Amino acid sequence: MAMMPVTDSMFLLGESREHPLHVGGLQLFQRPEGAGPDFVGNLHRELLSEVDIRSLFRRRPRGIGTVGPLAWANDDDIDLEYHVRLSALPAPGQVRQLLELVSRLHGSLLDRHRPLWEAHLIDGLSENRFAVYTKVHHALVDGVSALRLLQKSLSEDPDERDMRPPWSPRMRTDAAAPPRGREGPPLSGIANAFGAVRDVISLAPAVVRYANQVFQEQSATLPFEAPKSMFNVPITGARRFAAQGWPMDRIRAVGVAAGATVNDVMLAMCAGALREYMIELGALPDKPLVAAVPISLRSDSDGEAGGNAVGLILCTLATDVEDPVDRLTAISESMRRGKQFYSGMSQLQITALSAIPFAPLAVALVPGAQKLTPPAFNLLISNVPGPKRPLYWNGARMEGVYPVSIPYEGQALNITVTSYDGSLEFGLTGCRRTVPHLQRLLTHLETSLAAMEKELV
Amino acid sequence: MAMMPVTDSMFLLGESREHPLHVGGLQLFQRPEGAGPDFVGNLHRELLSEVDIRSLFRRRPRGIGTVGPLAWANDDDIDLEYHVRLSALPAPGQVRQLLELVSRLHGSLLDRHRPLWEAHLIDGLSENRFAVYTKVHHALVDGVSALRLLQKSLSEDPDERDMRPPWSPRMRTDAAAPPRGREGPPLSGIANAFGAVRDVISLAPAVVRYANQVFQEQSATLPFEAPKSMFNVPITGARRFAAQGWPMDRIRAVGVAAGATVNDVMLAMCAGALREYMIELGALPDKPLVAAVPISLRSDSDGEAGGNAVGLILCTLATDVEDPVDRLTAISESMRRGKQFYSGMSQLQITALSAIPFAPLAVALVPGAQKLTPPAFNLLISNVPGPKRPLYWNGARMEGVYPVSIPYEGQALNITVTSYDGSLEFGLTGCRRTVPHLQRLLTHLETSLAAMEKELV
Repeated sequence: MAMMPVTDSMFLLGESREHPLHVGGLQLFQRPEGAGPDFVGNLHRELLSEVDIRSLFRRRPRGIGTVGPLAWANDDDIDLEYHVRLSALPAPGQVRQLLELVSRLHGSLLDRHRPLWEAHLIDGLSENRFAVYTKVHHALVDGVSALRLLQKSLSEDPDERDMRPPWSPRMRTDAAAPPRGREGPPLSGIANAFGAVRDVISLAPAVVRYANQVFQEQSATLPFEAPKSMFNVPITGARRFAAQGWPMDRIRAVGVAAGATVNDVMLAMCAGALREYMIELGALPDKPLVAAVPISLRSDSDGEAGGNAVGLILCTLATDVEDPVDRLTAISESMRRGKQFYSGMSQLQITALSAIPFAPLAVALVPGAQKLTPPAFNLLISNVPGPKRPLYWNGARMEGVYPVSIPYEGQALNITVTSYDGSLEFGLTGCRRTVPHLQRLLTHLETSLAAMEKELV
Repeated sequence: MAMMPVTDSMFLLGESREHPLHVGGLQLFQRPEGAGPDFVGNLHRELLSEVDIRSLFRRRPRGIGTVGPLAWANDDDIDLEYHVRLSALPAPGQVRQLLELVSRLHGSLLDRHRPLWEAHLIDGLSENRFAVYTKVHHALVDGVSALRLLQKSLSEDPDERDMRPPWSPRMRTDAAAPPRGREGPPLSGIANAFGAVRDVISLAPAVVRYANQVFQEQSATLPFEAPKSMFNVPITGARRFAAQGWPMDRIRAVGVAAGATVNDVMLAMCAGALREYMIELGALPDKPLVAAVPISLRSDSDGEAGGNAVGLILCTLATDVEDPVDRLTAISESMRRGKQFYSGMSQLQITALSAIPFAPLAVALVPGAQKLTPPAFNLLISNVPGPKRPLYWNGARMEGVYPVSIPYEGQALNITVTSYDGSLEFGLTGCRRTVPHLQRLLTHLETSLAAMEKELV
């Protein structure tokens, strides 16, 4: 038994029925050629035969409901059938049915009497595919690390078999590592940004005050403050999840034509889609939405000593602008100014700052607190770099991987994208009550990208 | 908005992650001949087209988490797709996979931001069958009324179509009613017993004291006090559910041969099965287990004025006795003495008493309280009379119906049986951690019945 740092326990104490604080990942796989009808059932049985479990996956909280600090206990008697589940989709087994199931699974709380994770193998997906939805409590691991863990358990070799799951201590730790030297930084950088909400608590008040001031300064450079929007309200416990991938080539082509980055185009896709979605619902604010966008501040020259500094850019989404290219330009310019704002800062300043971006989330965990502050931003949009080459799990090719994230009180919609094998993979996670017809945002994302292509490419 | 009686709110305030307080029902259906592959999908779509919802199914609690009394609010904007869900079983789609899914569904909390019910259509069951699992919060309706509501939405006519679901205000209220004059009493009688836990709070302390005293007297007539057992411990939130039906003819034949009632034989089946199960786990107490068995105390001559008096008999399960017939005899005798105990009581006494049986459950809802009292009984075994003739839902014949009940703190296993169409249907609901391999109890129930048959029939 180990005492639990406040930074872990906050995620447990801050959790309620309305705010499950677990992160998830959805992976789509193509069955290998010649796979029998029981391929997924066999995978499930293999997973259940893994009796050794890494300590991270054996941790459960102790002392919930009592006075005094929480502690982590290691569970020596794991009921693996509870954690590793086999499910199936009803006919016609299309992505729509998959997203419905994932929405339900993501809305239920993890059982605190057990290690805080679940993995669901989902059979019955059309076109000879199957899916895996994984769910881990934020107190154990942040979303980026969770995605990375999933990827580490895969292989670039389609012929590899007998692969171990992420919870196995025998998992190959070198698998799927990005080539030479690039292992880690972008991922763990942003991972630390998510982790920053933990560290902010232990920061000296003076540093917090300073960083807050800098954050306010950045806000002041925006043409508008974030308006109140349909997303910035108290939320309920049920979730909606939507996901889809777009070819990186299309996004890159728009970026090249407009002199914008892939990230700028991604933000512009979101902006256009959100604008359409809110117009349909009669809920578009006059003032443009403001997105909070985490970026890695580590320069290539920093090397290993550069740490994992991450900044949060407050970026206008220019949702008041009708023309898609003008909107992209405004976003691109806003991101450029945001990066400038961070340039030339000392390492110490950046370290302090990187602890702050998620302070609003920390505040959001205090019941009622969010009512006291206007939204600093309307939604969080993150871009987490992922593996560039196709990955396989026991011969099954991974066709897509989508982050399933956490809506917070006052932040009812989260968009997290990741890159994989020439595709940009969008995961949209929202409060079911607050964000109706979330799947329409997928259609609007396509429309939004197509509109930019039409003008630019 | 209506103020919520304390008797309703207790079930909401007493609920926690470890103690979901909803009741459930599992129904198995045979697809009608000529049903297409999308039969269940079509049923689901039809259910979603039911826009009118009865007020019971529109109720949601208001004021949770605030100071002051709770109130019921009527939800005018129901997200029916949230409440009425289509799921499927993974291959091979046998009862085992069904019970696993129902176990999971029964372990998750209902969303308090919405009316407190869910209905799950479950496709992919082998042998051309499908299932329906329904879940309703105990604050809305007790388990017996929930079962009754399900049955009311069915028809004895295999050719009837366009039938309304239980939440429709246009549901035929005369459907599936037992023949003339028998409508209600046994069901609503025991329903009231479950409801009694609500009323006990509003009883005058003197009456409670009196009734407690009588309850103690009854306990004193038992040869043994209830031993501490593996079932009488704090529980966790995850559930295990097992279910199976046995031909009433087999049970009746044993009863006739032994001079025992069907209920006695049912209890003896449970007793033999629990004995085997606990021996396998090395957990059989030396002293025999004591079951709490609700019985209707209404005599036939009471007529409508007789009220719905229900008693709770503390019955030995004679789990220390090796011979199956001796065990049945001991149980039968214990039940006879229990009934005698209640005979000759005044209506007032019975009314007071009928409020008491579930007081231990009320106590169980107070966190930590169960640690202060030894178990008055080891588990609750209820027998709820059901419809005698086969019922149909839009042409699909119901093949079985099983109660999914509530384990309580200190009462980790619940057995509820109901009768249907010549079969006695067992539903076993337990805390997943406390009651391992619950399915084995089904095998042991069969062994237990066969052992009695061997000696007696």
